[in-house]
Formats: sequence, structure tokens, C-alpha cells
Amino acid sequence: MSGNRAVAYKEPGVVEIIDTDYPTFELKDGPGVNPANVGRKVPHGAVLRTVTTNICGSDQHMVRGRTTAPRDLVLGHEITGEVVEVGPDVEFIKVGDIVSVPFNISCGRCWNCKERKTGICLNVNPDRPGSAYGYVDMGGWVGGQADYVLVPYADWNLLRFPDRDQALEKIMDLTMVSDIFPTGFHGAVTAGVGVGSTVYIAGAGPVGLAAAAGAQLLGAAVVIVGDINEDRLVQARSFGCETVNVSKGDPKDQIEQILGVPEVDCGVDAVGFEARGHGKDASHEAPATVLNSLMDITAAGGALGIPGLYVTGDPGGIDDAAQHGSLSLSLGTGWAKSLSFTTGQCPVMKYNRQLMMAILHDKVQIAKAVNAKAIALEDAPRGYAEFDAGAATKYVLNPNGYVKA
Amino acid sequence: MSGNRAVAYKEPGVVEIIDTDYPTFELKDGPGVNPANVGRKVPHGAVLRTVTTNICGSDQHMVRGRTTAPRDLVLGHEITGEVVEVGPDVEFIKVGDIVSVPFNISCGRCWNCKERKTGICLNVNPDRPGSAYGYVDMGGWVGGQADYVLVPYADWNLLRFPDRDQALEKIMDLTMVSDIFPTGFHGAVTAGVGVGSTVYIAGAGPVGLAAAAGAQLLGAAVVIVGDINEDRLVQARSFGCETVNVSKGDPKDQIEQILGVPEVDCGVDAVGFEARGHGKDASHEAPATVLNSLMDITAAGGALGIPGLYVTGDPGGIDDAAQHGSLSLSLGTGWAKSLSFTTGQCPVMKYNRQLMMAILHDKVQIAKAVNAKAIALEDAPRGYAEFDAGAATKYVLNPNGYVKA
Amino acid sequence: MSGNRAVAYKEPGVVEIIDTDYPTFELKDGPGVNPANVGRKVPHGAVLRTVTTNICGSDQHMVRGRTTAPRDLVLGHEITGEVVEVGPDVEFIKVGDIVSVPFNISCGRCWNCKERKTGICLNVNPDRPGSAYGYVDMGGWVGGQADYVLVPYADWNLLRFPDRDQALEKIMDLTMVSDIFPTGFHGAVTAGVGVGSTVYIAGAGPVGLAAAAGAQLLGAAVVIVGDINEDRLVQARSFGCETVNVSKGDPKDQIEQILGVPEVDCGVDAVGFEARGHGKDASHEAPATVLNSLMDITAAGGALGIPGLYVTGDPGGIDDAAQHGSLSLSLGTGWAKSLSFTTGQCPVMKYNRQLMMAILHDKVQIAKAVNAKAIALEDAPRGYAEFDAGAATKYVLNPNGYVKA
Amino acid sequence: MSGNRAVAYKEPGVVEIIDTDYPTFELKDGPGVNPANVGRKVPHGAVLRTVTTNICGSDQHMVRGRTTAPRDLVLGHEITGEVVEVGPDVEFIKVGDIVSVPFNISCGRCWNCKERKTGICLNVNPDRPGSAYGYVDMGGWVGGQADYVLVPYADWNLLRFPDRDQALEKIMDLTMVSDIFPTGFHGAVTAGVGVGSTVYIAGAGPVGLAAAAGAQLLGAAVVIVGDINEDRLVQARSFGCETVNVSKGDPKDQIEQILGVPEVDCGVDAVGFEARGHGKDASHEAPATVLNSLMDITAAGGALGIPGLYVTGDPGGIDDAAQHGSLSLSLGTGWAKSLSFTTGQCPVMKYNRQLMMAILHDKVQIAKAVNAKAIALEDAPRGYAEFDAGAATKYVLNPNGYVKA
Repeated sequence: MSGNRAVAYKEPGVVEIIDTDYPTFELKDGPGVNPANVGRKVPHGAVLRTVTTNICGSDQHMVRGRTTAPRDLVLGHEITGEVVEVGPDVEFIKVGDIVSVPFNISCGRCWNCKERKTGICLNVNPDRPGSAYGYVDMGGWVGGQADYVLVPYADWNLLRFPDRDQALEKIMDLTMVSDIFPTGFHGAVTAGVGVGSTVYIAGAGPVGLAAAAGAQLLGAAVVIVGDINEDRLVQARSFGCETVNVSKGDPKDQIEQILGVPEVDCGVDAVGFEARGHGKDASHEAPATVLNSLMDITAAGGALGIPGLYVTGDPGGIDDAAQHGSLSLSLGTGWAKSLSFTTGQCPVMKYNRQLMMAILHDKVQIAKAVNAKAIALEDAPRGYAEFDAGAATKYVLNPNGYVKA
Repeated sequence: MSGNRAVAYKEPGVVEIIDTDYPTFELKDGPGVNPANVGRKVPHGAVLRTVTTNICGSDQHMVRGRTTAPRDLVLGHEITGEVVEVGPDVEFIKVGDIVSVPFNISCGRCWNCKERKTGICLNVNPDRPGSAYGYVDMGGWVGGQADYVLVPYADWNLLRFPDRDQALEKIMDLTMVSDIFPTGFHGAVTAGVGVGSTVYIAGAGPVGLAAAAGAQLLGAAVVIVGDINEDRLVQARSFGCETVNVSKGDPKDQIEQILGVPEVDCGVDAVGFEARGHGKDASHEAPATVLNSLMDITAAGGALGIPGLYVTGDPGGIDDAAQHGSLSLSLGTGWAKSLSFTTGQCPVMKYNRQLMMAILHDKVQIAKAVNAKAIALEDAPRGYAEFDAGAATKYVLNPNGYVKA
Repeated sequence: MSGNRAVAYKEPGVVEIIDTDYPTFELKDGPGVNPANVGRKVPHGAVLRTVTTNICGSDQHMVRGRTTAPRDLVLGHEITGEVVEVGPDVEFIKVGDIVSVPFNISCGRCWNCKERKTGICLNVNPDRPGSAYGYVDMGGWVGGQADYVLVPYADWNLLRFPDRDQALEKIMDLTMVSDIFPTGFHGAVTAGVGVGSTVYIAGAGPVGLAAAAGAQLLGAAVVIVGDINEDRLVQARSFGCETVNVSKGDPKDQIEQILGVPEVDCGVDAVGFEARGHGKDASHEAPATVLNSLMDITAAGGALGIPGLYVTGDPGGIDDAAQHGSLSLSLGTGWAKSLSFTTGQCPVMKYNRQLMMAILHDKVQIAKAVNAKAIALEDAPRGYAEFDAGAATKYVLNPNGYVKA
Repeated sequence: MSGNRAVAYKEPGVVEIIDTDYPTFELKDGPGVNPANVGRKVPHGAVLRTVTTNICGSDQHMVRGRTTAPRDLVLGHEITGEVVEVGPDVEFIKVGDIVSVPFNISCGRCWNCKERKTGICLNVNPDRPGSAYGYVDMGGWVGGQADYVLVPYADWNLLRFPDRDQALEKIMDLTMVSDIFPTGFHGAVTAGVGVGSTVYIAGAGPVGLAAAAGAQLLGAAVVIVGDINEDRLVQARSFGCETVNVSKGDPKDQIEQILGVPEVDCGVDAVGFEARGHGKDASHEAPATVLNSLMDITAAGGALGIPGLYVTGDPGGIDDAAQHGSLSLSLGTGWAKSLSFTTGQCPVMKYNRQLMMAILHDKVQIAKAVNAKAIALEDAPRGYAEFDAGAATKYVLNPNGYVKA
């Protein structure tokens, strides 16, 4: 167990498989590791042999060069694994457990963790609340697109699947529980989706599709997904969503054709800061488009769930405001309609167990909804490229062969 | 009962006392009445003899010429009255009742009303959800800064005070229940204020002071109020608030001096779209300043209550974006901290009864907190002028002499 | 329109079709009308031609002689109708509308209504908060198992279906929105059912089956229904529920066989005060059995939704305590597990619109779930008898031929 | 540091000071230690030198012989201390910290802890969910009425006070944060107390008084406390409560004299299973009296918070039902009023930080409210006796002299 292959960011547009060290119970120096975290002891950690690890849309921000991610940063925060080693302080998690790792790293000791706000844990990232594996400015915890990965505070962080065989059988669904399924679900929940709701989801990438599946699970009457990518809209229709191609014009009119009214109860932003315009402006970045559109089409009294990522600094932003994370928002429109807004990382631990239960009891087919496809670890560069080109596919890396053809 | 004196908007900077008609159970044509509302029958209405009617900061937006309010619009949406006549459909409200009128007009029949969202009632304003007395673009319901006023859907809208003598004795407190006390309280509630919270309230005008009193009533540990007007900050300190003079620099540093940390749990925007800059920029309008500052000083996981008004069109805005209600917001900052935001009119009916109870049982001294001062109806022009000049005073008009010296 | 056939209670075990008066906009004296309500004017009312009106399990308590219901009481509180006349105060509801009537009568003017607690309206029943059509001690509002029925406060109470043809096409589902679907759903909601929950529902009558369908709509992972009536359990299995025959022993063991653990997250009591024992005691009434059993099988931290009716006086109760509505409850068990309990009538208006949306968009098949069967009004006596004998059928009366074969 | 004085239960009515071992990081065998917990390693624990440790009403159940508590059980679950030693797995808590210990022991790793349900932690008591220090059938964790005590899972369980000097200055208030203040507050919260509520609290012992202070902090308009002990009612009046002496008759009439109506919005049971009757029955135990009375006097739509302890077995119960924890409850009354009920241990961690903030910022004087009195450890027997005799005093043991006269 001396080696450990991993997917690393090299330069804009380039990821490669590199050889790194097998994890030990310490956070060692390396690309992107916060100096204050270097040498941190992790006796509460567990080493996982990776069962699956997915490529995420938020990884693409780094790979496209829209962040300050350093060369050789090991990527990957959507991780499912088998426990192969536990630190001396681990009491309940056992070697052999098949576990899901919430992408947010959290300590289980600070006040935010005690209040279930694990997306903004105070003890894992010296820079600011909140952390994640393999992500720029998130403390430096090594990414999981690798053969092995270290998970700190294992008793707190890990969700154990109740049965190994059942877990491996449903692994393509369960692999979504580490991030995109809860993230999309959180978008739906914070948008106020409930039984009988009408919902518009901006973005038909994996998070948008997961939000759509989540909205269905919550009992929504109608789920409408908007995007400019027709393949992804086909995917959305495959599990019962209505769709709107926003490259063909303002979603408001198309929503009216579907619902009879030009408004929905609930709006979800599953796009984030790299948004493009609508209609004839669909070829340009227009970072405030999605939020302004959602304020327009969400009925008075509604809510917007905003799982799509907005950043404080974007070196590739279209103008100075965008480069500093400022957006020109029609807040007057939102205020007149008494809208509310929820932003931020999904606190995965708030939802992962219940979504696991829904999967294990066949209440949702999330792998189908996002068109999950397992590929070998060494095919990660191709996966990144195809995903960036707009494939209607969620790529699942399979480093250790747990996923059978 | 043939006459009815009223306060009318004449032109930017000018209000006058005019003679208008005594109300009947019909909404007649007049300045600012939506054509679709002209001739609307109001058999469910009640005519009130005004006990008190307050000048509101949101009236000032109209009087300063920052809206399209028409000449001769009768102002006034903060109304307490004695019922002198009821329409034929009124069943429970009786002549002689002393009542508080929620500033939001609502029907008590539509789905938003059924869900307690009376600030966005669907049946009272032909233009869009939500309405108010004496306000531009709100349907045309005649204002209550007058001797008499008509209240539609009286059984639904009116809050009856349990005892006439008790009500008149505490009238300077109870007059705040029609708008600013619930509005400030809603700001505190939607900011997540609870027992032990630390709170920052931007703006020490009456709504800000009411938010502060509301936050105290909710059990906040520390309430900090920020403004550039030192008289208003003195007023805030008079009932136990900490204060920050934002003309002296970024509130963050001053908050750190007070709390030991540069952040609060909860943020309230009691300023709205006519905000000014901080520090050396305090002399200029800078409409996004308050919200950007609140995102900066509210701790991760916190919430912003935004009772301050933001509009969809402001002819006096500093630039094209402001004139269309767009703000340049650092959403990246908010997103990184998982903040949530609640906007819109306070649904007064959700809070007015409980706040009345708190007043009647001496749990809060809201009149003192906002420095309420009764003046004669004919002194309204002076009240508007002094308030606009920054007086740390809430002006209460006393048209019919109910308020004794 | 001079006549009006109706189903009336005659004596224990006997209901008959009688001829009564066509409704006018006044509550006239008659069997069971509270003296304080006699002569009450109803200008806010609407007369409906009944589209469908269902026989309810709670009607059976009266028909079995377990209440003080008077002879000739017209039954029926589950009503869907076509508006044929409106009183002078009705503003929004129109003749020709197809509408669902919440079984709870409420005024839309009192504080409980304003807080969405329409099951305990303060203005419709002189005896105590809360009312219903055609029910003993509920104020005396005439029942709707008739050709025509009067609905007071029509603008507030009635839920209009958006499209007449669509409504009549789905009428066997929509007829459940007046009572049992919201009632069962409320049981599930107050039991804390959400995505991924495991749920046990005591009772496979229509309310229990509606609770099961509601739990599924809320995303429950596993829904288990218990009863002693095997036909009803077959019905529960027909739409994906697991079942437990409590005549075969303690449900705990059977739950363990299904789930692997002997506990569920959420418990619903859809039985009420006429409960029978479990196992060998299934032939006797044992009124506390269901609640004690639910406390036993609901996991620590769980909640019990109790839509099943418990009364303050039951002349047919098995002993003095039961006759006065007292139950011997193992509260120590519940306390040790930190359980919570929600009792009372479902406030239908809180749920009916969202459940209508779920039906109209084919997210739930409630008619199939409860095995709805339309019969002629004159067949009501047979319907009552078969239902009382344990038929796994929800009987829907069809007085005016709206329901086609 | 070889010795450790402690208060131990000897036999009904008798507690004594004994010498026990200084704690190590292991749960050793001893009186009341669950066999499955014997030898459990506690590397995550901290040893505290006790600053204060209070005598609790629930200790009296044991001392009165109403439980199966074994001889020599070391008592005490209300603990504040100074950290003198930490186990090898403790990362954030430091020697020298002054800390409050939630009386519920919890692991911070199980699903209940992750959902903030620390009163029913799954990993600390082999018998059932939930645990506490020094209490019968709670796993065997040694009580804290001693010079030193071991706290497991220290990083999770301990609440650190921000400043040592400030903490010691306010220690008589802060000592209440380990149990009775949160417990009373939880009663008020789960009874639905908010701004403007009217509240009735059954029981003027320390928990009842803490519930009253908590209700005031939550903004209640009127707080009424009922008891049969006039000294305790005097204490309640000392901080602004209204009072009812239930030995003089049904509380309903006295409530009507205070409020003008015979009902309150919210009811709290701060008595539990050793309740006595009202009026002429006040000399007898009548375990269901409090709950039946609360159902009677709480208005329709209200809620009952039940922090008072109900047990599954009471060897001293007045009859067979009481001995098995069964109560004859008028559930029909509660159901007709749509009441809800919340039982169980208070999950202290949900509230302790916010209550600490309220104390540190002088928003509440809980020590005065409960009439806290510091006594030497060796005076514990006298404290138990006086408290049992009905003294209106909360006894605070001061083993190490931290509390100055």
C-alpha cells in the first residue's frame, strides 16, 4: 500500500493522473495546504480505499482556471469508500465499513457543527468557516479522486451504509449521496419545495438534475428545468421533468405555456457564477442572469434556493465587478415580491442519511436521473473534458474496481 | 360628518392639509386610484375616526420625489381608529371599537392571506400582489392621515383592542402596532434573532429603533444600532442599545470593540434603497452599502432581515442601475458564509396581536424607544420636514384629539 | 329546486334518506342546531349542488350510537359541489365553480383562522372552538349528504378547482380533498414524516390508507400499516405499503421482520377511541391500545400524529373512564423516549390546495389507495352498513349524477 | 489528588459524604454502573475540579426511594467545573477552561446527536437512548456532587465560558446552565411560548421558576405559576410572575381572575409523576392531575411542554397503574382542543450557549429567580433535607471554594 494514484490539476484545461503518497494520520504539506494546517495530527481519521469518486461541476471551475488553485492540487470531494484503517481515536467506525463522505469536512465539536451547519465548520479551515477535500482555499485536505484518501473526524463525518452487498449493488446511486444529491435536494428544500409545489430549476447539469429528482421526492407537482444544452434537457425529460431551453428566449413565456401562469412557487439556482444570458445572449457570460430571472419568475411569497456556487474572487470574470464576486441584482423586484434567498454549501450531513434511505428503499433513481457513468481513474482527464464540453453525464471514477460493468 | 381633512402630497418637498370627502363604502376615483379599482364596492368595510396616524419613513420616499406619486395623493398608512360606521357585511367588528389597522391591506380570502402572507394579498391591488393605504402604485386605497378613513375587509383586517380606556391610555405605544413595530420586529425575526443573539441593525430611524426594541423583546444578548445621525444614536442608547456611528468608518471595527469579535449573529437592514456610504463616503448615496456591509459583518450561518424598502423604479437614483432597482451586491461574500436573506413588506397581521399583548402587559416601551411625539393634524407639514431633516422623533398625528397632552 | 333529499341518522344502526328543505342563507332550527346558532344569517354563504359526498369513519361513531347525535340529524361533512347560488356578500366565488369544502367550518375572521388553525375556529360553534357539517355538538350546520348544501363564509372556505372538465374527470380523487386525504396527510406531517422516514400507521381504514398515501407523497422510505382486517391490509399492500396484522400479535415483532429493527421513526394513530386490543385481545375494545403501542414502537425522538378521534364523552365506552374520555396511557414510556404528540382535527385548509395540485398533476392516486366507490344517494344506508362491517372501500355518494359510471 | 469526596445515596431519606476515587479515563465498576459500560475507555474525556454542582429535584426522586437507585450511588448531574486534565483525544478543550456540563451525556457521533437530540444519545447508555451523570439506570456515569468528576467526549459536551473571571463572578447564574435553566426554558419553548404569550406553569420548584424566567426571556406577556407551597409562590412573585395556589381550588378560576379569561396560550408541566391533587385533594398524590389540569386550562390550539419527569416504573406509586408509569389522561379534552404535547429530557446543548449569552449580558437573573444558595459539600445532606421539605431555595454545592461568600 505504498502508492496512491490521484487526479491532479496541472494548469487551465489540464488534469493528469499522478502518483502521491498513501495517506497517514497527519495532514502533510503539499499543494494548496494551508500553512496553519501543515502537520496537523489526525488520530480521529480513517483511511478509505476509494469505492467511487465523482467529478463535480465545481471541480470544473478550478480546471477551467477560474480560481487560484495551485498546480498539482489533488482533486475530488465526492467520495465513497471502504474503511481500511482507523486512527487511535476512532470508536464507532470499523475497518470494512462501506461509507459515504460528506464533501464538507467538519469537526463535530464546534458550535456550527452542533447546530448542524457542517458546511461552515469553524475548526477545519484556518482561513474561514467551511472546508472540502481537494479544493482551493479550503484548508488543504487532500482530494479523493485517488486510490486512497484520509477522512478526518471519521466517527462524525462518515455515513455507514447498513449492508455491504446492498451498498455495492446500489453504488451508482449511493455515490451521489456525498454531494450532488444532497446539494440539489438542499436547493429544493431551501426553495420551499413541498407536496404540490411548482418548481423551476435553472441549470440541467448534475446538480440541477439532482435538484429536480429531489423536488420530485419532496412531492412537487411540476418540476421545470431550464438550460441551453439540449442534451441535458433531454436527460431532464427522461425522468418526468418539463423543460425550457433558455437559449430560445425568456423562460417566463415557456413556463406560462407549461403551467398556464408565468410563475412558479419555488426557484432553484443550480448554475452559479459562470451563468450565461438567455435568448440571443446565451453565448455570453452574464453572471446575474440566473438570479434576476429567478426573481422574475418566482411568485410573490416564494423562495430561492441557491446551491449554485458564487465566489468572492474570479480571476476570469467578465468585468471588474464579476472578478470581485459582485453581481448587479434587481433586488427591488425581489423585495416587491417578498422573496427570500438561501445561499451556501449544502450541509450534507443534514440530508445524507434520509437520502440513503430513499435510495435503499427504491424511492428515487438518482443515478439514472443524472445519467451516471463509471469510468476508470485513468480516464478522468477524458471525463473532465467531456463534462466540460457539456455531456449530459455524471462521471463516476472507479479506481479500485468496486463498480462492476 | 360631511368634511374630512387630510394630509396630501403636493410636489417634491411639499405636503399640505386638504379637504376631502368623508368616506363611503366605495373606492371612488381620485389621485393614484388604479382604474380597475375605481367604483369597487366595500360593503365589508368600516369607517374609522382616526385616533392616531403616524408619519412613516416610507412616506418620505414619496415626499422627497423619489417615486411617481401623483399630486394630491392622500398619505398615511399607519392608522389607529375608532369604528364609527360598518358596512352591511361586517359581522364581528362593532361601532365604538378601538382598532389598529395593519398597513398592508388584505382580503382574507386569497391563498396568500390563507397562508398568512398578507403583505402580498392577491385581491386588493390590480397591479401586483400587496397593497397599502395612501401609497403610490398600491391600488389607490385612500390614506389615513385624515380625520376619517375607510378600511376594507374590516372583520379580517382590524385588530380590536380589548379595552377602550386601557387602549387610549397606552395609545402612543399601541399606535406603533399598525406598522413600524411589527415591521422592525419582522426584521429581527427574519434575521433569526432569538434569546442570546448578537444583532446589528443598520439604521436608527423609527424602523431601526423598533427593530432594536423587537430584538430586545426576543431576548437578544446585545443589540447594536448603526447610523450616521448622532441624535438617533443617542435615542438608541437611551433604551440600552450599543451604537456605531458609520460616518466614522466601517462598522466592523466598532463592532469588534463592543463584542470582542467583528461579527454578529443577525443583521437587519432598516435603511433600504436610499442608503449612504460609510466613513468618508457617508455624504453620498450608495444604495448597496448597507447590504454589502451586513454580509461582511454577519457571521457565517447567519441571516439578514431586510425590512428596509427596495424599489423597482427610483427616478431619483444615482445612476441607471439604481433607477431600475439594481444593486451591485457582493453575493460571493454572502454565499461563502451560507447567509440567507428575507425581503419584503412585513405581514403585520402575523405579529400585531402578540405585540399588542406585550405592550398591554408592559413588556416593552415602544413609544419611548422611537421617541414618539403627538402633533396636530395641521402640523403634519412641519412633522414631515423635521423628520426629513433627521429628527430623532416618530411623529404621531392626532386629528381628533384622542391623544391628551 | 324546492326539494332536497338527504341522509339522516335515525337511531343506532339506522340511517335513512329523508326529504328536507332546500338551503337558504340562514341557519334554521332543526335537529342538533345549537340554539345560539338558530336564525343566524349567512349572506356570506354559497349553496352547492352536491357533486360528491363521502361516508366517513367518524360518521360511524354517530351511527353506531356512540354519541348523543339526535334523530334526523342530516349527515355528511365530506363535500364537493357545484356553486349554484351565492349570498350577497360573496365576492370571489362564482356560480358554476366546482369546489371542495373543508370539513371544518371556519369564519376567516377570528384569530385561530388568521393563524391557519381552521379546525378550532372561534366563531362558528357556540359551544367550543371548531365545527363541522352534519355532526353532533358542532354547532348544527346541516350535513352535505344531500342534493344541496349551504356553505358559510364561502369566499374563505371554498377551494375552487381550476378547470371544470379536469375536475370532473378526476372527481373520485378530488372528492378526498375535503377530509380524509388532508386528515391522513396531517397525521403523517405531524408524525414528522419526511424523505427517508420509516412510518407505522395504526388502522387501515380510509384515513389510515390516506395517511399511508400521504406518507409516500412526503417521501417516506417504508410505510407499514397495521389493522386486524385482512381485506383492508390487502388494500394497503395494493399501493406499496407493508402490512402488519395486529390480531396476530404485537406489531413490534412484525415491524422488526420488515425493517430489521423493532422501531419506526414516525407513528400515526388512524384509529381513535374505538380501538381494539392486539393479538388475542383483538376482539375487545381497549381504547388506549393504539397509543400505548405507538409509544412502544416509535423510536426515541420520534413523533405521533393522532388524527384518530378521541372524545370527551362516549356513552358506549367500556368503562367509566372510557365513557368520560380518559385513557390509561404509559406516558412514562413516551417521556423516556422524548416523544411528542399532536392531536385534533386536521385544519384542512392548510393542505387542500397542495394536495389538489398533487392530484391534478398525477403525483398520487388517492382514490385507488382508499378503493373509492361511487354509489347513489339512495344507497347510502347500504354504504354505511358495508363500511361498518369492514369493507375495504371508501363510499362516495353521487346524488346528482356528476360521477359517471 | 488521590482523594475525592462525593455525595452518595445510602437509603431512602439518607445521603452521605463518602470518599471515592479520583477519576481516571476509564469507567470503572461501581454502584449502578451498567455491566456493558464497565471498563469503557474514555480517552476523549476531561477531569473537572468541580466549581459548583447543584441539587436537583430529580435527585430527590432517588433519595425519597422512588426508584431502584443502589446504595452508594454518587449523585449529581448539574455540574460546572474547571478542567484539570484532558484525555489524549481531546483537541479543543484546554486545562484551565471553566466549563458547563450538560447533564445529558452524549457522544457527538450518533444520529441523534447529529440531529441535536442529545437527550437521547445512542452510544452512552447500553440500556436505552439517553444518559446522565449520577443517575439510576442511566449507564453508570459517576455523579458530579464531588470534588472531581470525569466528563466523556469533552470536546463535544463541554461549554466553555469565554472569560474565567467573568465566569466566576456570575457563577451562581451560570451554574444553572447545566440543567434547570435549559430544562425550564425547553418547557417554555415546547409549550410554544413567544412574544405576547400567556403562560401557566405548574410547579414553583426550581424547574418551574426557571421555566418562568425562561418564558419572560422569550417575551411572554403574562407568566402564571401554580403550586401548593406558598413560600415558592412568594419566590415566583419576586420576579414578576403571577401566582395561583392550587391548594385553594382549581387553577382555572384563579387564572380567570388574573387574565379575564380562564385559559392560557401555553402550559408547562414542571411537576412530573409525583404530582398532588388540587384544592382539597392537595394532600394526596394524584399523578395525572397536572396534565389533566393543563389540558383543561390551555386554550384550543395550544401546546404543553412537559419537562417534569414521568417514569416507566415507580415502586412508590399510589397504585398499580402509577407503579408502571400509566396515567389516566383525559385525552378527549386535549384532542377536542387540538393540543400538542412534548415530553422528555431537555437536550441541554440546544440551549446552553444562548442562555449563557443572556446571563453574561445581564438579560436574565436566574440565580435570583430560583433563589440560589451556595453551601459546602459537606452540608449536602442538610440541603437535600431542606429542599425535600419544600424550601424555596436552589442549593448549590461549593466543594472547592470557588464560590466566595
